[in-house]
Amino acid sequence: MSSDDRWILGVDIGGTNVVVGAVPLAGGDATALHTVETGPPGDPEGVVERIRTLGAGCFRSLEEATGAGRDRIVGAGIGSPGPLDRADGLVLDTPNLGWKDFPIRDRVAEVLELPAELDNDANCAVFGEWWLGAGRGVDHLVGLTLGTGIGGGIVLDGEILHGASDAAGEVGHMTVDFTGRRCKCGNDGCLEAYASGPNIAARAVEGIRSGNESILPELVDGDLDRITAAMVYEGLVLGDDFAHDVMTETARLLAVGVANLVNLLNPERVVIAGGVTRAGDHLFRPLRAEVRRRAFPSAADACTIVAAALPETAGVVGAAGMFKKAHFGEV
Amino acid sequence: MSSDDRWILGVDIGGTNVVVGAVPLAGGDATALHTVETGPPGDPEGVVERIRTLGAGCFRSLEEATGAGRDRIVGAGIGSPGPLDRADGLVLDTPNLGWKDFPIRDRVAEVLELPAELDNDANCAVFGEWWLGAGRGVDHLVGLTLGTGIGGGIVLDGEILHGASDAAGEVGHMTVDFTGRRCKCGNDGCLEAYASGPNIAARAVEGIRSGNESILPELVDGDLDRITAAMVYEGLVLGDDFAHDVMTETARLLAVGVANLVNLLNPERVVIAGGVTRAGDHLFRPLRAEVRRRAFPSAADACTIVAAALPETAGVVGAAGMFKKAHFGEV
Repeated sequence: MSSDDRWILGVDIGGTNVVVGAVPLAGGDATALHTVETGPPGDPEGVVERIRTLGAGCFRSLEEATGAGRDRIVGAGIGSPGPLDRADGLVLDTPNLGWKDFPIRDRVAEVLELPAELDNDANCAVFGEWWLGAGRGVDHLVGLTLGTGIGGGIVLDGEILHGASDAAGEVGHMTVDFTGRRCKCGNDGCLEAYASGPNIAARAVEGIRSGNESILPELVDGDLDRITAAMVYEGLVLGDDFAHDVMTETARLLAVGVANLVNLLNPERVVIAGGVTRAGDHLFRPLRAEVRRRAFPSAADACTIVAAALPETAGVVGAAGMFKKAHFGEV
Repeated sequence: MSSDDRWILGVDIGGTNVVVGAVPLAGGDATALHTVETGPPGDPEGVVERIRTLGAGCFRSLEEATGAGRDRIVGAGIGSPGPLDRADGLVLDTPNLGWKDFPIRDRVAEVLELPAELDNDANCAVFGEWWLGAGRGVDHLVGLTLGTGIGGGIVLDGEILHGASDAAGEVGHMTVDFTGRRCKCGNDGCLEAYASGPNIAARAVEGIRSGNESILPELVDGDLDRITAAMVYEGLVLGDDFAHDVMTETARLLAVGVANLVNLLNPERVVIAGGVTRAGDHLFRPLRAEVRRRAFPSAADACTIVAAALPETAGVVGAAGMFKKAHFGEV
């Protein structure tokens, strides 16, 4: 046990699961993790109740594991899908959760009986990587998470960039081809429209439909609609050339967005998270090469591009770190 | 005269001209402006000598106009093309000027007998607009200058974003079409490859060569290579539909880059500078509409897109402001 045995609760509200865990105030692994399905949309009070239960479980586990009682927990950081009003602690309007103007921060503070802070879930994940993960020790960091969409966040001089209306950091919605693929957000040619999980799968299916040979159809008994990004990775491992090409193309498309971020923000580190990072060098080698081809040398030289170090817990760790930053001034 | 009659010298080193002027420490118009051609490349000491002469002229003009003598001038801010090493005051390697590892800050400090600070010319111009121009009063600002290239800078919480190696803010080298037009920087599909002055002209020429009717060829006696971006504006004023279309297309292409910046950085203000802003509503109306179509509403709503307010002096004003920020902590 650290000589400072105080803890912060991290609450990570996702479209699929809610996770609660405890993070040492002094920094360290998230522990006493409890998780449950987020549940049906449109029921924010139901989620608050689940957070109450998860919190109680977390308090119990923490005490069992470390001896630290409730009085050692100084507060809770909450990561939630946005858009948010951080100052007032509101989730303004979240299509995935079906919430509108919901005071999540104060409701969670009430049920956990702890002071609480709210930030965007993607910002929290990136801040977690910055505090205790793959971005440790750098001043400037950009994170991208490739999942159902492409989320991300920007940390500059150790601070999450929020912008004028808490809307900064939408790295997935950079246009990389202004006449390109239609994105769910309504824009044309967003990075997300090429390199999110569903769009990696969609590009694979398009390639197969246009005549490329591949074992991917066999993996889904010929039902191409069942092809996923994870299967592209499986195919690659099985030695499928087409799956390899899809992954290389994904890396190059991702590199367009990363090179833009490198030229704009000149970060020391870009951290990539999400299932696609399992592809390892198949992803990172062409990604790094293409960023180097596209970005200014002085900016590319200053930047390393790495996989996330906390794929399971970055959201919880970052939410806790965000609370610490708000209440203790630094992490 | 202000009760605080102290002044800062702003030195703006451009590829074509060097400008020196005096800016009130308390903020206000640049005055006592003196300018001269930068001269041939590869002669940084020649430029230092010209800055000595311009400085002497500026001191004289300032004293004549305001009574403020040399002892009222607290220092000099220098804006120079990069890449730079700001900490050591070096121009590292500037193709346009043909300088390499030149200690411009200390040489200017010596010949002007003033403490001096160095920053990128594009950063200075944007900082000038933030301090005393079209970005006054906002926290977060992005500036783009459409000229021979597209330069720019990012001000966040009133600070120029420099990044890890003084390379941040290359807004012109965002890829907006990953298979698009080749850019001078070596990358494909940079914003600059579409919307810089020479590329606006090039797109017009391509359109004419592919059969569009226009009065532009008449303006250059049929020598299409002489068409410039300024002529596209002239054609537009003369009622040429094709010139109007080229301007609208320019606005839409610029909007792709601006929408990216809005989604990433969520600034309150985007300031556009350069000759193309003379097109006024012909540029800004389609630009704003396309940004609104492409960016997230919560970010687009928070941002106004305006023309620069200090087209002639932003570089001098911003260089002075940058010095003030470095030596007085704030502007």
